[in-house]
Amino acid sequence: MAGTQEHAISPTRTEDYPEWYQQVVRAADLAENAPVRGCMVIKPWGYAIWENIQRILDAKFRETGHRNAYFPLFIPLSFLVKEAQHVEGFAKECAVVTHHRLESDGQGGLRPAAPLEEPLVVRPTSETIIGAMFAKWIQSYRDLPLLINQWANVVRWEMRTRLFLRTAEFLWQEGHTAHATAEEAMAETCLILDLYAEFAERYLAMPVIKGEKTESERFPGAVSTFSIEAMMQDRKALQAGTSHFLGQNFAKASEIKFLGPAGREEYVWTTSWGVSTRLIGGLVMTHGDDDGLAVPPRVAPAHVVILPIIHKEETRAQVMEYCHRLLKEIQAQQYDGQAVRAELDARDIRGGDKVWEWIKKGVPFRLEVGPRDVAQDAVFAGRRDKGPRERESIPRAEFVARLPQLLDEIQDNLLARAKAFREAHTVEIDSKDDFYSFFTPKNPEEPEIHGGFALCHWCGDPVVENQLKEDLQVSIRCIPLDGSTEPGTCPFTGRPSPRRVLFAKAY
Amino acid sequence: MAGTQEHAISPTRTEDYPEWYQQVVRAADLAENAPVRGCMVIKPWGYAIWENIQRILDAKFRETGHRNAYFPLFIPLSFLVKEAQHVEGFAKECAVVTHHRLESDGQGGLRPAAPLEEPLVVRPTSETIIGAMFAKWIQSYRDLPLLINQWANVVRWEMRTRLFLRTAEFLWQEGHTAHATAEEAMAETCLILDLYAEFAERYLAMPVIKGEKTESERFPGAVSTFSIEAMMQDRKALQAGTSHFLGQNFAKASEIKFLGPAGREEYVWTTSWGVSTRLIGGLVMTHGDDDGLAVPPRVAPAHVVILPIIHKEETRAQVMEYCHRLLKEIQAQQYDGQAVRAELDARDIRGGDKVWEWIKKGVPFRLEVGPRDVAQDAVFAGRRDKGPRERESIPRAEFVARLPQLLDEIQDNLLARAKAFREAHTVEIDSKDDFYSFFTPKNPEEPEIHGGFALCHWCGDPVVENQLKEDLQVSIRCIPLDGSTEPGTCPFTGRPSPRRVLFAKAY
Repeated sequence: MAGTQEHAISPTRTEDYPEWYQQVVRAADLAENAPVRGCMVIKPWGYAIWENIQRILDAKFRETGHRNAYFPLFIPLSFLVKEAQHVEGFAKECAVVTHHRLESDGQGGLRPAAPLEEPLVVRPTSETIIGAMFAKWIQSYRDLPLLINQWANVVRWEMRTRLFLRTAEFLWQEGHTAHATAEEAMAETCLILDLYAEFAERYLAMPVIKGEKTESERFPGAVSTFSIEAMMQDRKALQAGTSHFLGQNFAKASEIKFLGPAGREEYVWTTSWGVSTRLIGGLVMTHGDDDGLAVPPRVAPAHVVILPIIHKEETRAQVMEYCHRLLKEIQAQQYDGQAVRAELDARDIRGGDKVWEWIKKGVPFRLEVGPRDVAQDAVFAGRRDKGPRERESIPRAEFVARLPQLLDEIQDNLLARAKAFREAHTVEIDSKDDFYSFFTPKNPEEPEIHGGFALCHWCGDPVVENQLKEDLQVSIRCIPLDGSTEPGTCPFTGRPSPRRVLFAKAY
Repeated sequence: MAGTQEHAISPTRTEDYPEWYQQVVRAADLAENAPVRGCMVIKPWGYAIWENIQRILDAKFRETGHRNAYFPLFIPLSFLVKEAQHVEGFAKECAVVTHHRLESDGQGGLRPAAPLEEPLVVRPTSETIIGAMFAKWIQSYRDLPLLINQWANVVRWEMRTRLFLRTAEFLWQEGHTAHATAEEAMAETCLILDLYAEFAERYLAMPVIKGEKTESERFPGAVSTFSIEAMMQDRKALQAGTSHFLGQNFAKASEIKFLGPAGREEYVWTTSWGVSTRLIGGLVMTHGDDDGLAVPPRVAPAHVVILPIIHKEETRAQVMEYCHRLLKEIQAQQYDGQAVRAELDARDIRGGDKVWEWIKKGVPFRLEVGPRDVAQDAVFAGRRDKGPRERESIPRAEFVARLPQLLDEIQDNLLARAKAFREAHTVEIDSKDDFYSFFTPKNPEEPEIHGGFALCHWCGDPVVENQLKEDLQVSIRCIPLDGSTEPGTCPFTGRPSPRRVLFAKAY
């Protein structure tokens, strides 16, 4: 760790990307596996990132007229079956509550007792239960639009789990809205997609591509599904948020009707949309490096950590007093509409270990403060967007005054870097051979890192999608909303293609 | 509703208190019963109160060094059995997940499939699962104290449920801390009890009595349980928050040990504490009246609602312009460290209905604005702590300038009123006959409203507690921390009593 060639995280990204990811999550103290299959414990540093994500998104939902509410964790089976596609999509991964009591098993253990009349599913998503409430709440066109959001935990019993990316339980927000017309519901779907994309880029420094899913990747029960797709450092795509236009499918399933101004009863048009703690996995794989995590300042739990360097006891009082004063000055600064978040880490552990802990956690600024810095009225500052040994002494007052601007610089750097990475690994491909070659590992030492985003023509046939998934584990991530719409020829079938779509391997 | 004698809520408190409660919750649009047994849907107005409670408490937890984290929803049965008292306390009300898939039942329905190897309990509280994590996280005295809080949903399968007060699923925060010594853990227990009491009084305008529970009312697995107890308007006690000193019980159950400075391995001392959405039920029963809810300004989703009065179309533009300007001015004011929260309700419904909706919701200030108010540059203001027809015209600029002070007045009034009510119904009782008479309904027309808080001597014998519970449904709510500690004689046994304790009927 101390040598110039070594790194804080082992293995490195190129050595073993999936294992690198797990190690960064661990080293940054974000989360760990719980002693419950497939579940995670989100630790304070990871949870604080989620709280920042919540705070920012919540304000944006509110500004756009949405209100938060809370719906039950449990869904009766009879609700789930109401929408045929929906139940088919979720039935295989539902946690089912069947009993409401425990009794002694006579051997010092417990067993379930008192069976429920109707088993309950732990919500994998809430369209059906919220639909049942909307049916009660909506009577007339005056009750529309109804714009509701919920922050909640959901459970999907996945067989292969990975911290943040795919866990049996995860935290998310789910928006559910009802509208009088298809046009309004589609406008809502797009409004949220834009909101998600802007959030990802501006706050997570994670550039994304907005697009529509093909039928095979659609949300079960949706008419159309839109998503934002980000490129991770193994060049795979991460679906980072989805917005669904549900048409009248759920309105019909739950009998959500309204009386129009002309007195005619009609079904409403609904949408649903969500982002989850998966975003934190995306953050790690967008900005992490072989020294750990780098957190974009706008969502960082702390912007600055102050690390007092005390080699001799007689300097302690002076250094600590300087550090406390510095802390207050920093906290009095504003960044992104909030007080700057700073911590003073005075724990009694080895200075080198402490510095590396904070590098791994990805705090934007580390300020080492020893007697010499006090004497010079300066701070010895390290930025997480630069090398761990690339530090500089900056006069205290200057650092404090420039801090908001410096944080913006880091935020911008992280975004620019992620954009450049994505651009470097996005290609247009026009032949099947090139396509197969692009998505085949070249270096057997690095099987995980290859490929990227391929913009290719596609005739629209799902058979092509199935074949590519089978052969290469590649799928159409989306039909980009902003890309070129020039027609061409599908390299897989030779048939005409209305436009290029985005292919990639995906999480 | 329009007459002078009538009220917006029917039945009134004296007519049928339990039904009045349900009607206020409904009329204030706080929550409703979900189509899942015992569960509730928290609607936007109710959820916004909870969000304010969260925001305020969260800041206080943070100031006192606590950090938020998130632990799994599911607890393996093998964890729950580790602490014998604990499992005994919760086994009868646990929702149990036994399967992780659904399959067709061949009749258009679904049935559970794929049984879990070990059934999982939906957390009724998280001591055991958090204890398992603490055992991993804590190695040395340097890791202590460990101060963690979680905002989460929990499930307790209660047979009789009531919105907010007792529901199968509810939202809460649960603090869990570990300390090196019993003294530090006890200091934490008391710190949080004080914090809860201050919060209840200062923000919810709900005066509470702090005290320790007797053994029969202790949290399952705790060494001692402390609570805050508030008096509702039917004079029953509501336990509004608890703080538990867990000793080393859970440390031993979960093997949470640390290496002391002297190198000796010891068990930690833990605490846990929580408040829940039950507080909203307490709010309703503290401040609600026969016209609906009154929300204390510090936790009100909106401080002010502006209600444009438009009788003729030609005045619309002028009135609306004035209202929008007023809205901006009001929102630019600060109250309790935040921007004043105001809404403009321009819905196209009858003015009288609209005003009453807001009275029932309990918004602190209603401002009716019609052409005459515009002409006078004034607002026609109604305060929720005064009668619904007691309104006054106030010059606009004066109202805006004085708003923070006026909100404080309302907040103070609500607290003073609740304190006076509690004092009026708190008595010292020294004979068994008086005690039985106090807790027996006098008026058969009002069976629900009688009694109050009785401060009585008690010899300490649990037999007395059982007898009183059986005869009168009265229990010892707490041994008050701040009350008189003069010794006396137990009116039930004639034996000596070290001090008076607090008896009441309770939710």
